[in-house]
Amino acid sequence: MKLEETLNRLDQTQNESLSRLSELLKFKSVSTNSKYKPDCIETAKWLVAELNDIGFNSSLRETTGNPMVVAHSNKSKGNFLFYGHYDVQPIDPIEEWKNDPFKPDVKTISGEKVIVARGASDDKGQLMTFIEACRAIKYVNNSLPINISILLEGEEETSSPSLVPFLKKNIDELKCNYAFVCDTGMWDKKTPSITCSLRGMLSEEISIKGPNRDLHSGIYGGAVNNPLKVMSKLLANLHDENGKVNIPNFYNGVETVSNELKNEWEKLTFSEEKFLNKIGLSKSSGEKEYSLLQKLWGRPTCEINGMWGGYIEEGLKTVIPSKAFAKISFRLVGDQDPEDIRLNFRKKLRNEIPEDFEIKFSDHKGSKATQFPLNDQVINKAKKALSDEWNSNTVFEGGGGSIPIVQHFKNILEMDTLLVGFAQDDDNIHSPNEKYNLNSFYKGARSWVRIIYEISE
Amino acid sequence: MKLEETLNRLDQTQNESLSRLSELLKFKSVSTNSKYKPDCIETAKWLVAELNDIGFNSSLRETTGNPMVVAHSNKSKGNFLFYGHYDVQPIDPIEEWKNDPFKPDVKTISGEKVIVARGASDDKGQLMTFIEACRAIKYVNNSLPINISILLEGEEETSSPSLVPFLKKNIDELKCNYAFVCDTGMWDKKTPSITCSLRGMLSEEISIKGPNRDLHSGIYGGAVNNPLKVMSKLLANLHDENGKVNIPNFYNGVETVSNELKNEWEKLTFSEEKFLNKIGLSKSSGEKEYSLLQKLWGRPTCEINGMWGGYIEEGLKTVIPSKAFAKISFRLVGDQDPEDIRLNFRKKLRNEIPEDFEIKFSDHKGSKATQFPLNDQVINKAKKALSDEWNSNTVFEGGGGSIPIVQHFKNILEMDTLLVGFAQDDDNIHSPNEKYNLNSFYKGARSWVRIIYEISE
Repeated sequence: MKLEETLNRLDQTQNESLSRLSELLKFKSVSTNSKYKPDCIETAKWLVAELNDIGFNSSLRETTGNPMVVAHSNKSKGNFLFYGHYDVQPIDPIEEWKNDPFKPDVKTISGEKVIVARGASDDKGQLMTFIEACRAIKYVNNSLPINISILLEGEEETSSPSLVPFLKKNIDELKCNYAFVCDTGMWDKKTPSITCSLRGMLSEEISIKGPNRDLHSGIYGGAVNNPLKVMSKLLANLHDENGKVNIPNFYNGVETVSNELKNEWEKLTFSEEKFLNKIGLSKSSGEKEYSLLQKLWGRPTCEINGMWGGYIEEGLKTVIPSKAFAKISFRLVGDQDPEDIRLNFRKKLRNEIPEDFEIKFSDHKGSKATQFPLNDQVINKAKKALSDEWNSNTVFEGGGGSIPIVQHFKNILEMDTLLVGFAQDDDNIHSPNEKYNLNSFYKGARSWVRIIYEISE
Repeated sequence: MKLEETLNRLDQTQNESLSRLSELLKFKSVSTNSKYKPDCIETAKWLVAELNDIGFNSSLRETTGNPMVVAHSNKSKGNFLFYGHYDVQPIDPIEEWKNDPFKPDVKTISGEKVIVARGASDDKGQLMTFIEACRAIKYVNNSLPINISILLEGEEETSSPSLVPFLKKNIDELKCNYAFVCDTGMWDKKTPSITCSLRGMLSEEISIKGPNRDLHSGIYGGAVNNPLKVMSKLLANLHDENGKVNIPNFYNGVETVSNELKNEWEKLTFSEEKFLNKIGLSKSSGEKEYSLLQKLWGRPTCEINGMWGGYIEEGLKTVIPSKAFAKISFRLVGDQDPEDIRLNFRKKLRNEIPEDFEIKFSDHKGSKATQFPLNDQVINKAKKALSDEWNSNTVFEGGGGSIPIVQHFKNILEMDTLLVGFAQDDDNIHSPNEKYNLNSFYKGARSWVRIIYEISE
C-alpha cells in the first residue's frame, strides 16, 4: 500500500530530513530587525531551491519587506494551499542560550531527542514537516494525490506588513479550496490537536515625552513630572483591580465561547497547578471568574511586551529622562474590532498624561479573532489521520495566540483553514533555548502524509 | 597689589587655561561602567602631573575602584581641603549629542562662549577653576597665602564606594580646618551663590522575577502575572494622588526649612513659569502645598531613574518576560534616615508583589541631608569675594542635589564645607550636550583667587 510505503520512506530517511532542517535553522532570519534582511533573503532562496528539488514549481517573490516563497506542485495552482513562515523571533536575552541559537544542537533533554535553535519549533521545524511529507509522497508516487501550493512568509513575527497586499495581488494564483497551516501545538506529547479558535491581535508602540531634555534628578526632582512615573501609571492603569482591561468599550463584541467548543475543552485533562508549576509560578492572574483555559483561549487580554526609559546600563545615573517607551499587545476574541480598540486605547492614554506631555503611537496591523466549524469534512479527515498516527484521540483545542493569516485567507481568498501543528508547550518558542522534539518532527511529517492521503480519498 | 596682579595673570593666560581644560575633557572617565576604568586611571595620572607642575606635592592613590588624586601645597597638610571629582556621567543617549562628547567643542551658543563636552560643567570645568586659581597665585607669589590640600575623586557619579574607607584611612593627612567644594551652580548668569543646604540621597536597584522564562504572550497572556505589569504597579504606587511619597514613615525626620533660610529664598527673584518653560513644561508636579523652590530644596523626593524589561529593540515581540528592572533614587531632607527608608521601601515592595514572584535589591550608599550655618566666617568672606568679582550680591541657595562628601567631611574629618560653584541651569549636566560657559570658567578662577586672598587676611 502506498501509505505504508511512504511512511517507511520517511522513517528510512530521518537523518537526511534532520540535516535539511539543520541547514534551514542556520539562517539568521530574524524579521523584527531590518539588519537581518539579507539573511531572510538567503533563507527564502534556500527554500525555493529545496522546493524545486522535490519537483515543485517554485519562485522567490519580492515584496517591500522580506520575500515570499511560492511553489506549486502542478503547472496550474493547487486545490490546497500550505502556509508556513521562515522568519524567526529575535534571540535576546542571548546570555540565557546554552548554544548559539543559529548553530542547531541535537541532544537529549529529559529523555527526549530534540533540536535546539531559534525557529526550531516556530516555524521552521513545523513547515519542514509538510515539505518532508511532500518529498516522501513524491518519491513513492512521482506525484501528489492532491494539487498543493505552498506559501512561505518571512514577516510573520513582525505583523506581516507585506502579506495582505501580496494576497490581494495574487488572488487568482493563491486561491484554493482549503488552507493548511502548521504553526500550532499538540495538546500534550501524546495527543494530537486541531486548533479550532484563535485570538485576534493588536499591537501598539507608545512613546511619551515630558521635559525637553534629560534632567538631573537632584536639581529637578520633586517638582517636575517624571516620564517614567507617568508611564508606570499609564501601564498600571491598563487593568482594574479585578484583572479586567480598563479601556472604555474594550469588551464590546466579546462573545461567550460556544457550548460545542466549551464541551470539547471541558473534556480535556488539564491541571492548572501543573501548567503554572512548569513556568515557575503558583498563582494564575487575570479575570477571576474564568477558568485558566477560558482565560487563555476565550478571553481578550492586554499585555505589556516591553517598557523602558532612563538609565538602564550598569550602575546609577540620577536622571529624570525626557522620554519613556512601551510596547503593548492585545489578544482579541469574538467580534472585537481592533481599530475601535486602538482608538479607545489612544484616547484613554491621551486623557491620562499630563497636559504638557506629548504622546506618540506607532501603528501595527490588527486582526480579529477566528472560530472554525467543528463538523467540516477536511477537519474530520485530518482528525482521523492524526488519531491514526498518534494512536490517540485528536482534541479540538482553542488557541491563545493569533495567526492573522487565517483571517486573511477567509477574507481575501475565501478559504477555510486547517490548523495542525506538532509543537510542545515546553518548546520555548519566543524564548531562549527554543527546541523542537524530533518525535514532533518525524511523526509530524508522517501525520501530513496521512492527512494528504486521507483527504485525497 | 597682589590680587590685581593675580587676576591680570589669569586674564592674560585664558587660552592656556582653556587648552588645559580641553585636555582634561578628552578623557573618557565614565565611572558608572567598569569598562572605562583604564580611562579613569589615565585621567587621575594627568591630574597628578598637572598638580605637580604647579608645585603641589601630588600623588595617585589606589583604591578598590578608581584612584584618588591627593595633593598638598606644603610638605605638611593644608588648612583648607579642596574637593572635586574627575569622573563623569555616561554619555547616552549618544544620538542626541551634536559633537563627540569627548572631543570638546568651543563655540558660541545664544551669544555666549561655551565649551561642550561630557563633564565640562560636572565637574571637570569646575575643579579646574580652582586649580587655575592656585596656578596664578603661585605664579605671582611663588606660594599660596594659605595651606591648601586637594582631593580629587573618580567615583562621585557612582555613589563614591571607595570614599569613606579612604577618608577614614587618611584622617591625619586630610583633616583640615575647612573644605571647599566646587560642584554647584550660580543663581543665574550674573548672580553668584553659596549653597547652604543639600538634600541627602539613597539609591536602590530592583529586579523582579515572575515566570522562570520568557513566555509567548499569546499562549500565556491573560492568565499569568506579567512582571512588567507588576513593576508598573510597584512604581505607580510609590506616590499617592497628592504627590506624596507612599512609603510608610517616609516623612519621619523631615524638618521644616529654617526661617532664616526661607527668608533668603523668598528674597530670590524666581519665575516658576520661566523655570518650567526652559525645560519644555508648563506645570510643576509633586506636593501641592509647597512652592517650587521648597519642593526642590526643602522637600524629599522619590524618582525613577530607569526602568526596563521585555523586548525593547526595533519592532515587536509578543513576549511576557521573566524579569523586570528599575533604578530608584530618593532625595532626603532634615533628619531623614536613609537606612530606615531603605528598609521600609523594601518591606513595602515585598508586600506588594505577587506571592510567587521574587524581588532582589542592590545596595547603594545613602547619605543624610546637610544644612550650613549662615553666620560662619569663611562663608561670609567667600560671600564678599564673590560679590566683588561678579559685582552682584551673593545669594544663599538651597541645593536639590546631594553631595554626600559634605556629610563625610563633617562626620569623618569634622570639617565644615564651603559650597561655591559656577555652573548654570542650562549646562545640561547628566544630559546630552553638557557645556560650561567660558565666563563661568574664567570668572570662576578669578572668584577662587579672591576667596583665597580674602580668607588669608
